[in-house]
Amino acid sequence: MIIMMNAPTRDQINRVLDKLRQLGLDGHSITSSDKTMITASGDLSACQPELYERMPGVDRVVIVETPYKLASREFQKKNTTVTVGKACFGGSRIPIIAGPCAIESYNQLYQTGVSVKAAGAAMLRGGAYKPRSSPYTFQGLEMEGLEIIKTVGRELGLPIVSEVTDPRKVGLIAEYVDMLQVGTRNMQNFVLLQEVALTKKPVLLKRGLAATIEEWLMAAEYIMAGGNNQVVLCERGIRTYETYTRNTLDLTAIPVVKHLSHLPVIADPSHGTGNWRWVSPMAKASVAAGADGLEIEVHPCPEEALSDGPQSLTPGNFSQLMSELKPLATALGRSL
Amino acid sequence: MIIMMNAPTRDQINRVLDKLRQLGLDGHSITSSDKTMITASGDLSACQPELYERMPGVDRVVIVETPYKLASREFQKKNTTVTVGKACFGGSRIPIIAGPCAIESYNQLYQTGVSVKAAGAAMLRGGAYKPRSSPYTFQGLEMEGLEIIKTVGRELGLPIVSEVTDPRKVGLIAEYVDMLQVGTRNMQNFVLLQEVALTKKPVLLKRGLAATIEEWLMAAEYIMAGGNNQVVLCERGIRTYETYTRNTLDLTAIPVVKHLSHLPVIADPSHGTGNWRWVSPMAKASVAAGADGLEIEVHPCPEEALSDGPQSLTPGNFSQLMSELKPLATALGRSL
Amino acid sequence: MIIMMNAPTRDQINRVLDKLRQLGLDGHSITSSDKTMITASGDLSACQPELYERMPGVDRVVIVETPYKLASREFQKKNTTVTVGKACFGGSRIPIIAGPCAIESYNQLYQTGVSVKAAGAAMLRGGAYKPRSSPYTFQGLEMEGLEIIKTVGRELGLPIVSEVTDPRKVGLIAEYVDMLQVGTRNMQNFVLLQEVALTKKPVLLKRGLAATIEEWLMAAEYIMAGGNNQVVLCERGIRTYETYTRNTLDLTAIPVVKHLSHLPVIADPSHGTGNWRWVSPMAKASVAAGADGLEIEVHPCPEEALSDGPQSLTPGNFSQLMSELKPLATALGRSL
Amino acid sequence: MIIMMNAPTRDQINRVLDKLRQLGLDGHSITSSDKTMITASGDLSACQPELYERMPGVDRVVIVETPYKLASREFQKKNTTVTVGKACFGGSRIPIIAGPCAIESYNQLYQTGVSVKAAGAAMLRGGAYKPRSSPYTFQGLEMEGLEIIKTVGRELGLPIVSEVTDPRKVGLIAEYVDMLQVGTRNMQNFVLLQEVALTKKPVLLKRGLAATIEEWLMAAEYIMAGGNNQVVLCERGIRTYETYTRNTLDLTAIPVVKHLSHLPVIADPSHGTGNWRWVSPMAKASVAAGADGLEIEVHPCPEEALSDGPQSLTPGNFSQLMSELKPLATALGRSL
Repeated sequence: MIIMMNAPTRDQINRVLDKLRQLGLDGHSITSSDKTMITASGDLSACQPELYERMPGVDRVVIVETPYKLASREFQKKNTTVTVGKACFGGSRIPIIAGPCAIESYNQLYQTGVSVKAAGAAMLRGGAYKPRSSPYTFQGLEMEGLEIIKTVGRELGLPIVSEVTDPRKVGLIAEYVDMLQVGTRNMQNFVLLQEVALTKKPVLLKRGLAATIEEWLMAAEYIMAGGNNQVVLCERGIRTYETYTRNTLDLTAIPVVKHLSHLPVIADPSHGTGNWRWVSPMAKASVAAGADGLEIEVHPCPEEALSDGPQSLTPGNFSQLMSELKPLATALGRSL
Repeated sequence: MIIMMNAPTRDQINRVLDKLRQLGLDGHSITSSDKTMITASGDLSACQPELYERMPGVDRVVIVETPYKLASREFQKKNTTVTVGKACFGGSRIPIIAGPCAIESYNQLYQTGVSVKAAGAAMLRGGAYKPRSSPYTFQGLEMEGLEIIKTVGRELGLPIVSEVTDPRKVGLIAEYVDMLQVGTRNMQNFVLLQEVALTKKPVLLKRGLAATIEEWLMAAEYIMAGGNNQVVLCERGIRTYETYTRNTLDLTAIPVVKHLSHLPVIADPSHGTGNWRWVSPMAKASVAAGADGLEIEVHPCPEEALSDGPQSLTPGNFSQLMSELKPLATALGRSL
Repeated sequence: MIIMMNAPTRDQINRVLDKLRQLGLDGHSITSSDKTMITASGDLSACQPELYERMPGVDRVVIVETPYKLASREFQKKNTTVTVGKACFGGSRIPIIAGPCAIESYNQLYQTGVSVKAAGAAMLRGGAYKPRSSPYTFQGLEMEGLEIIKTVGRELGLPIVSEVTDPRKVGLIAEYVDMLQVGTRNMQNFVLLQEVALTKKPVLLKRGLAATIEEWLMAAEYIMAGGNNQVVLCERGIRTYETYTRNTLDLTAIPVVKHLSHLPVIADPSHGTGNWRWVSPMAKASVAAGADGLEIEVHPCPEEALSDGPQSLTPGNFSQLMSELKPLATALGRSL
Repeated sequence: MIIMMNAPTRDQINRVLDKLRQLGLDGHSITSSDKTMITASGDLSACQPELYERMPGVDRVVIVETPYKLASREFQKKNTTVTVGKACFGGSRIPIIAGPCAIESYNQLYQTGVSVKAAGAAMLRGGAYKPRSSPYTFQGLEMEGLEIIKTVGRELGLPIVSEVTDPRKVGLIAEYVDMLQVGTRNMQNFVLLQEVALTKKPVLLKRGLAATIEEWLMAAEYIMAGGNNQVVLCERGIRTYETYTRNTLDLTAIPVVKHLSHLPVIADPSHGTGNWRWVSPMAKASVAAGADGLEIEVHPCPEEALSDGPQSLTPGNFSQLMSELKPLATALGRSL
């Protein structure tokens, strides 16, 4: 932490240094013409700009430390791998998670599961509890959906992932699925993150719609600080001024996260673009950027989907994409 | 809803018209050169672009209807007023809510309450459950904080507002406070909105950090659809590329919301700017833009605040601001 | 400037200190556990992060100095006032600039000029050269427009402002108008800024569509470094994800700019909102936020305007707004 | 164009239909409950919302037509190829443009040119006129830089590209270089675009820092409407709230542009990320997303670069990247 002071008195400098000392931090001051900079180091949690910014003479406080620890590459050099059934995220393979946005019926999910498995998907996704912007649209089959996905997953031998939205239901859902998904709107639902931590289940943590990379890693830190380090991050597009696409898929976040953190990071080109037309090129781009996996929406009949149909691939499109991804992964020294 | 088709066949047009008819919508098509537009009207909930966008021949679907109903000015022409104790939002008076970001002790809150009441504040705020980006920072006094704010509110005769973050605790908190605040990170926590609806208590619904005005009104719709129409909206700044200020206070949202909706809308210049220096000018600007109230952070000693100190006014600054707001309100034909 | 090093060797630290010394900067290093921070001070222009960021051992470089000088409040404490005929920006009065987006004819401009003058406007605006997103839309009357605005300005005794877009025409336009406007798309057209500097005419410098406050002040610095310190800044809305309004008027920029700089700053609620409905409330909010003036689009018949009709006030609306602004200015201790 | 009317009178509907007729447009109205929609089709340039939005009874106007024509895939189905010396953009090959941000000396550019040519680059870049945010930083060698790049290009047999910033110098620069670059800050400098059109030279048109895809294509339309259809588009990152990276590289824009337009589109991962660490992964991601070329900054000694050093690759890094791109291109059915 660096505290910038503008023409401070000797007394003002001493007040800041005293405060640092009280909080167990190590402070040094350097004065040059009428500016003084105080550098402070020590325990992370005492480095809160708000404790210093209002002190007399202080101009501003710049945090230069990383605010997360467990999620940081500095804390753990080696890549974390997260294993969900036969799928392993963070190694040389690139598992593909596929399935519909929402579970609509046993037939719909079974049919999708069969086709995505045949094409090479490593996991099946499907939403039973859907957070929707409008109270008047389909909110998911709830418990019935969980029963369906559990059955289909077992029948096809595919590990399954589904979203949690309510802290009261996390424990229950954890009994049904192999991996818990925390959606973009809940990335900073800290109450939910704490419940998810308690389950010790693998977690797929989507980036918030307007979250910085740092806030995203802080959300992972919440889960890890709660005792669960089985976290896979998922870039799914951020909100920008561009309206032609639903979101702006921030693929640079992938190498950045891999540099800052040891956690695996995958991409969701379906939500990231919002339109099936851009899913295949952006799936390939994600893999080339270094993604440790993909999550892709597939629906047997997108024009009848109850949720997010326009961004779903047909089984045929998905199969075509998988056949294009394979040589790409090989060229990158990885495999699906 | 308007469905744009590009060089469709007669059969493709008929498929769209049939689908509209099945869903009870009224469709008309117009063809001009190789473009066909189909207009559809009828029940709101059937107007989902995803049902049409993937149909053959369809180029894109434009929703022209308002997706919220109960919150809309079309549904209710007359302004809603929300009364919390002696404070009334949505009429000619402009109630000011003041207090610390977080409740730290009885003394801190009582001292703040006395000074803001003396300066003319109509309500007292204070957080007992604080959603914080880092798991390592102060998260609030929780139950102890609720006891404190309830006591102070009663002693000073000020109605109180505090934030809810956990659906499991909404009922309990509703027994302590006069108004429930839904924070920016929870604006689309639909599970929480549904619980808040059940309490029938007045709700202060902050705009999400990157929420559109439409999404914000949809969040209000969730609460209203759950049977609680006592909703006060609060503009608190949005996330933009500008980093000099913590957020960008979008004051145009105030006249826009008052045009689109009958609900009262207030502003929070403390979070909206993130720095006490800009709070007073932006408080005045908010009132001039038509705000139905203000929420302002006041702390007896900002440099010792455990949360958001840099954006808190001192009691002296707050008192000065109130004395400047009064003639301004008068010039606008309103009063504090 | 602060240079952060991660576990550097003694030699790496020395290389950085040597480089600073070569460039005439004063460097000090502080090491704490495995981090070293080097603070550097001295001549602004040598503080370029790019010179240090790639050096071995350097993690990142943080600039803490203000990159502008002439425009800075540190350089000049006293407010600058810019006088254009009888209008004076930066003092206690708040001059209102009004007129059509584009000059369409003598009659249109004269009619507008008479009505805005009667309502109390201090200056007349009108575009002769219009930068338009489409090559197929009206681009302005060019020379004929300049002749018209010069004539109307003289007849009505109103100082005039018009936009420059081409460095080859700056000198010519400067002979016709009292103030040169640099539009939002040209804020970083450095070639144009240099030409505008040479004229020594007052300049109205609009904020770029996605410019930070710092970049905006740097653009002012270009003009001032070229020998022209008659710069009035104009906040006109920034680009954000919100699409309901054309732009997001960033009114907090007004007190921020007045804190950082001695230059006057005004607001343009017409472009800032893009819709006449929000112009009046946001004009009032701008004044309450501390704006030193306003620029407002007025057209005798907005529905026939060749450019930006939807955001233009009618003469009647404008006159009504002026009558509401007067008591507001008084309540703020200022006058129109 | 669709004109939405809210509870209009018969007379108001007729006024709109009459206006459409006057402007040569074909209008049809459909009324359903209290809403009327009027669809209008015909000549593009008459479809200006501003002509209708202020008419009585009109609620809003939605443009559904594409505002560009020459740049549109509807106008020309077949891909355009742009040939610059031996480099061809828009075919199956993927030419790589490499070189320093700014030309600093003959030796610097020659050394860079030799190494990038050896690694397989198809063109050499280098800036002689640099638009810089600060008036106090290096602005380029200007004429001397042009002489250097012309000489080096001829000696190495590499076609060259350099940036134009001043309409007065476009003709001169066109005599020195094989391709003119229009930088991000000048994408909507329409005066400059018109000059560039007159040269008939190939143009590299960078996307504006906060430009929508539509505005970018409109800028290409300006050049094409001026008689020059040799336009290559370049995605170089947009401005978002994320500050960890300098810009957010919007790779989805690549498949989107290829869908909307027949023009070639390349990517600049150097400016797009702002840090050499992310250049290689994002170069690969760009190619996987379908880019028709890349522009990459290479400097023989990035830590001594006078401009944009932190984002420059060393010749060694560049050579490594090229060897990784080759198998990737092959896997995608293309070649460098």
